[in-house]
Amino acid sequence: MSRRTVVGVMGGSVCDERTARLARALGRGIARAGWVLLSGGRPTGVMQASVTGAHEAGGLTVGVLFDDDREGAAAGLDLVIPTGMGAARNIVNVLASDAVVACCGSGGTLSEIAMALRFGRPVVLLDFDPGAAFLDRCGSGRWSLAATPDEAVVQVRGFLADLGRA
Amino acid sequence: MSRRTVVGVMGGSVCDERTARLARALGRGIARAGWVLLSGGRPTGVMQASVTGAHEAGGLTVGVLFDDDREGAAAGLDLVIPTGMGAARNIVNVLASDAVVACCGSGGTLSEIAMALRFGRPVVLLDFDPGAAFLDRCGSGRWSLAATPDEAVVQVRGFLADLGRA
Amino acid sequence: MSRRTVVGVMGGSVCDERTARLARALGRGIARAGWVLLSGGRPTGVMQASVTGAHEAGGLTVGVLFDDDREGAAAGLDLVIPTGMGAARNIVNVLASDAVVACCGSGGTLSEIAMALRFGRPVVLLDFDPGAAFLDRCGSGRWSLAATPDEAVVQVRGFLADLGRA
Amino acid sequence: MSRRTVVGVMGGSVCDERTARLARALGRGIARAGWVLLSGGRPTGVMQASVTGAHEAGGLTVGVLFDDDREGAAAGLDLVIPTGMGAARNIVNVLASDAVVACCGSGGTLSEIAMALRFGRPVVLLDFDPGAAFLDRCGSGRWSLAATPDEAVVQVRGFLADLGRA
Repeated sequence: MSRRTVVGVMGGSVCDERTARLARALGRGIARAGWVLLSGGRPTGVMQASVTGAHEAGGLTVGVLFDDDREGAAAGLDLVIPTGMGAARNIVNVLASDAVVACCGSGGTLSEIAMALRFGRPVVLLDFDPGAAFLDRCGSGRWSLAATPDEAVVQVRGFLADLGRA
Repeated sequence: MSRRTVVGVMGGSVCDERTARLARALGRGIARAGWVLLSGGRPTGVMQASVTGAHEAGGLTVGVLFDDDREGAAAGLDLVIPTGMGAARNIVNVLASDAVVACCGSGGTLSEIAMALRFGRPVVLLDFDPGAAFLDRCGSGRWSLAATPDEAVVQVRGFLADLGRA
Repeated sequence: MSRRTVVGVMGGSVCDERTARLARALGRGIARAGWVLLSGGRPTGVMQASVTGAHEAGGLTVGVLFDDDREGAAAGLDLVIPTGMGAARNIVNVLASDAVVACCGSGGTLSEIAMALRFGRPVVLLDFDPGAAFLDRCGSGRWSLAATPDEAVVQVRGFLADLGRA
Repeated sequence: MSRRTVVGVMGGSVCDERTARLARALGRGIARAGWVLLSGGRPTGVMQASVTGAHEAGGLTVGVLFDDDREGAAAGLDLVIPTGMGAARNIVNVLASDAVVACCGSGGTLSEIAMALRFGRPVVLLDFDPGAAFLDRCGSGRWSLAATPDEAVVQVRGFLADLGRA
């Protein structure tokens, strides 16, 4: 069995300092856990911050891009996958992830959370709460709230264990 | 200027009687207003009900399908657009709509609401409330709550007027 | 049975006068036959020419756009479907068509011909011949060569009859 | 600069022994060259054979799947990317590749060759010739014919050098 475990990190393409700091620490935690970090792969916001974190901790990083070329790829990506599909690539991010961590974001991030839960991917929300009225309606995937990157990694580990991916 | 105004109707592929009744009346209202009704085009739930309503009122109906063939198309569709793209076609539904009406649904519907607001499409929520904590975060699109199909049509008309599509 | 028959017209986004003239006459022929004309919907080349022809003959026209907004839509389109999916929307063009007519084009057009034949859609090549070494390899769809728009319409009619869509 | 060079291998989901043997040797050659092998990732035909070859030579393998789950993934894949997009994922395969090697295939493979050349990706055709009447029309990408996997690897290396990816 060679397949690597993939953890997707979603979040705003624009974000404040606090969110960027959390996303970077999360990226480091994902890499140290031995998981592949997958993101939307753009050079801004949560995408860049989480890739930077994973890359500096020596992890494998994958970016699935909105664009059809590699110009707009985040620094530190090992694998750049341009799609030219715009927002339709959000579904690829979700389906390719064994589990998703969502940082603070807006419509794009929220659509990814909704699709993740609908397709049974567990979602950890890091310092971000769009409300149970939304989360509980999305589908069969399980979700949890985490206050810190360390807590997020622990929760991801728990969800992966439940899925049989220790 | 020949372009027709398109109103997308989103909602669960499984729904209760009440939601189906609302969706059917909504479809009739959309057709009577002279708008094209666009939906996910499957023969179940809100998709079938809204198409049935629009079709019986003589409106033009378009279905953008999850599947790559036409076998699973709702009855009463004038234009069947199979995509074979699965959930990635949700973004097409949203982008093709001048305005969206969302009926009760789960993850798929919620992802469509999120993408609609992120891409500046107005959204009317018919007898469905996923919470302002979610809706206000999604983006630049405006949203409103409607209790009845008639109210939804009035709200859509208002949004379209603001967009210069009287 | 309300479903309309859809004929997709593919071809270069840049084309010479001769090809544009053929595409426009083809569009008129498709509209007069009572079929819906579907194209990539951009305001250039074969896309604009075929839409212009169908529109001036009173036909219903649908454009499935590369882009995520309607700014770049051909004049004369009744239904504009932005996808934001770039070249991935080519597959939608193909799957949504009961039959395809391909005018002179390059990689995008050739990929659409290949996908059409692979998914069993008949293809008429109007004044365009990419070679049997290519066409015969593509799949189960049938193809034919037409020298004029009238001949193309006759061949489409034959293919549709074989598919039970007289 | 961390980005890995990606070579996409395209070809039939059904293939004969000879093609499978060539694809497997090609996969080994790609891995030995230090490139990532990307394919459609299904457990059949050229996809499985090339992944098997790369995996047994210790290379990193990526599969971009037609399906929305991982059940139908080829053995030996390190990264499984389900898309649920059906044939629309072909464009992702192409755009994610620095260069493409096409083995014997039909419509799906030919659409990928067309898109690769249209988007400027170089294409090496291994023991497969769909005709210059097709290849020369596709676009700005360069192509060459190779009789053996070793020759294909040499040709890919040449194309990559021209692109500045030695």
